[in-house]
Amino acid sequence: MSAITTAILKVIRQSQKPISKADLVRMTNYSLATVNEHTECLIRSNLVAEVERGPSTGGRKPILLSFNAELGYVIAIDLESTHARVGIADFNCNIVISESSRDIDVSLGPSAVLEKIKAIVFRLMEKHDIKRNQIKGIGMGVPGPVRYNSGITTSLAIMPGWENYQVRQFWIQHFDCPCFVDNNVNTMALAEQIINVNTDHPNIIYVKIGNGIGASIICNGQLYRGSTEYAGGIGHINIGHDQLCYCGNRGCLEAKAGGRAIAIRAEQMARSGQSELLKRMLDSKGKLTLSDVRKAVIESDAVAVELMRECGIIIGDVLAGLVNFFNPSLVYVGGAVSGVGDVLLASIRQSIYQHSLPLATRSLTIQHMSLGENAGIIGAAFLAVEETIFGNGLMDTKASLRSYNG
Amino acid sequence: MSAITTAILKVIRQSQKPISKADLVRMTNYSLATVNEHTECLIRSNLVAEVERGPSTGGRKPILLSFNAELGYVIAIDLESTHARVGIADFNCNIVISESSRDIDVSLGPSAVLEKIKAIVFRLMEKHDIKRNQIKGIGMGVPGPVRYNSGITTSLAIMPGWENYQVRQFWIQHFDCPCFVDNNVNTMALAEQIINVNTDHPNIIYVKIGNGIGASIICNGQLYRGSTEYAGGIGHINIGHDQLCYCGNRGCLEAKAGGRAIAIRAEQMARSGQSELLKRMLDSKGKLTLSDVRKAVIESDAVAVELMRECGIIIGDVLAGLVNFFNPSLVYVGGAVSGVGDVLLASIRQSIYQHSLPLATRSLTIQHMSLGENAGIIGAAFLAVEETIFGNGLMDTKASLRSYNG
Repeated sequence: MSAITTAILKVIRQSQKPISKADLVRMTNYSLATVNEHTECLIRSNLVAEVERGPSTGGRKPILLSFNAELGYVIAIDLESTHARVGIADFNCNIVISESSRDIDVSLGPSAVLEKIKAIVFRLMEKHDIKRNQIKGIGMGVPGPVRYNSGITTSLAIMPGWENYQVRQFWIQHFDCPCFVDNNVNTMALAEQIINVNTDHPNIIYVKIGNGIGASIICNGQLYRGSTEYAGGIGHINIGHDQLCYCGNRGCLEAKAGGRAIAIRAEQMARSGQSELLKRMLDSKGKLTLSDVRKAVIESDAVAVELMRECGIIIGDVLAGLVNFFNPSLVYVGGAVSGVGDVLLASIRQSIYQHSLPLATRSLTIQHMSLGENAGIIGAAFLAVEETIFGNGLMDTKASLRSYNG
Repeated sequence: MSAITTAILKVIRQSQKPISKADLVRMTNYSLATVNEHTECLIRSNLVAEVERGPSTGGRKPILLSFNAELGYVIAIDLESTHARVGIADFNCNIVISESSRDIDVSLGPSAVLEKIKAIVFRLMEKHDIKRNQIKGIGMGVPGPVRYNSGITTSLAIMPGWENYQVRQFWIQHFDCPCFVDNNVNTMALAEQIINVNTDHPNIIYVKIGNGIGASIICNGQLYRGSTEYAGGIGHINIGHDQLCYCGNRGCLEAKAGGRAIAIRAEQMARSGQSELLKRMLDSKGKLTLSDVRKAVIESDAVAVELMRECGIIIGDVLAGLVNFFNPSLVYVGGAVSGVGDVLLASIRQSIYQHSLPLATRSLTIQHMSLGENAGIIGAAFLAVEETIFGNGLMDTKASLRSYNG
């Protein structure tokens, strides 16, 4: 879509009521000929509808235009490393139906995983009586790096078998509509952006601490993907330790403070008898997961609390450097590890304030993300809607949705 | 200046020859009424001139418009911690006259320093027969953080006495024109940007390694200043050592690898007899400077070379983290320390490639900045010209200058 069509559509979409071409001329400063040309194009592509005639100002009553939010549905998929959530949303990003599956693990490889997700999609469509030709776009978040422009997952050991897999191509075989694939830190950040409408905060770092650690960057109100679409890869920042990371390097942040590393360290502490509670958990289950550590923190197990505090300090120290460099006004922390509660966030804060200059933290807020388990699919829906409509990859999150109900 | 006026002026300024209003309508898609209104405003403010009448297309010959590059001069000042460079430039950022002074040290405090610079400015104006009312803007780079929007230097121990000093106010007392003050890493980066016209590289990190270490960020083709105008403050990223930094923290990057730290470590090595050459230099001068270390490196003194290599590894390790986070396609290294030659750049490269993921460095270029001693004043001139004309703080470095001769 051209810059002019985009600008005109944004005015129509954000308008609280149907709008005349004369108003569009006034609000955009484009000539009437330009407005005519581009609104015709928008009407042809079904994005804008002629809804009614407005009051006459002398001549015949002008036709009023409105964004056509009923133009169809988008499929929204949030794939995590050990589960997936699938939804169908309208063009205001409201999820009309969704389903979660714990029966999915990325290590099964792309074919098996995508087939399972496809089955869920078709089940949801049938349940809600949605036909294939009503699906206008697909948005999907995956737990690893993606070449956004081509929809191909790239190499990281966390997703064996997914190297150079054409995820977009898979979906295009089944649906006659555009498909957009991004890493699920970005989709999570997009969801937070549209729901919190952070227009006062154009520069934000979102940090997702799950099994891995990743960041999403909002710069001047837009999602920033970087030069090779890899921006935000903070999990592999070297923090100078000896632990081997699955990426092949030693010293990576997530090899010390990611969820997987936390579970392994908790097992070591259980075995060495430092924590009675963790030891009991390990004895009864044979292994510990992040979820077990979370339970131990909630039960105020001193060893588990100290483990989380240490991880917070380590993560905060890396974030302090990024705050000095990028000088955001908001840092959001989310993901499974952050679910352990305030001990992690408190130590992250402590570390950031200790190791950033006061000039960089003068008006910095550090807080938990606000969304629950639906964040990933809301973000994936937003990705699909924005790209299907505008197709410019800009993800201008200032363009608020008129009728989002979330 | 409004967005429309800006857009119209940019088309006029980038046009290789005078342009008609009809062409402006065609190229911007604005209505003739809008083009008329905004070009009149540009003519009134002397930014655009009616230069001639073009060929008739039936009716009377159209008036042609051109950017008025002769509308005056800007003052460009590059203040470093121990010297300053002052120039006067035209509106194509060509320096018409300049002078360097080693008689200036920021530690003298703002009044003394600015008075000395003012004396140079008046001398240059007299030499080149430039009247006060021909000065239309002032751009200045300083060796520390600045609140860009207010032109006030902020607190850092490197500039004692400069805390909350109203630098802009000082100049406005003497010249009836706008004044813009930025840190001199940004002005250096702006100069590199306009001269290298990096339109293929929208995302760049410029690193200046002098007595301190700072960075400048180009994001989507624009200078990025951050939420509290402090972005790029990488000299105080914690790298986990015990050295006290003048900022009050321990472990800062520049306390280990900045020019001041390098000189101190070279003195220690001289005293302990590790390097005969450094010892001779220290004995004859009583102290060592960065310039002495540079000489020792050029003479292949093994200890000095190893010292620079170590610093390169340390700086590169921090940059590796920033590359993972920001994923630029270019990293430029400049400043006095980088002047020691290839040993530093080579070790910075080694460290970045070792500690960044291949995904983030797939098409990364790491190189020396290309400009010599005039970089700072060229950047300051660009700052003054862009802000005087557009006044939007965006520093859109894609807007190339039509007649820059540098």
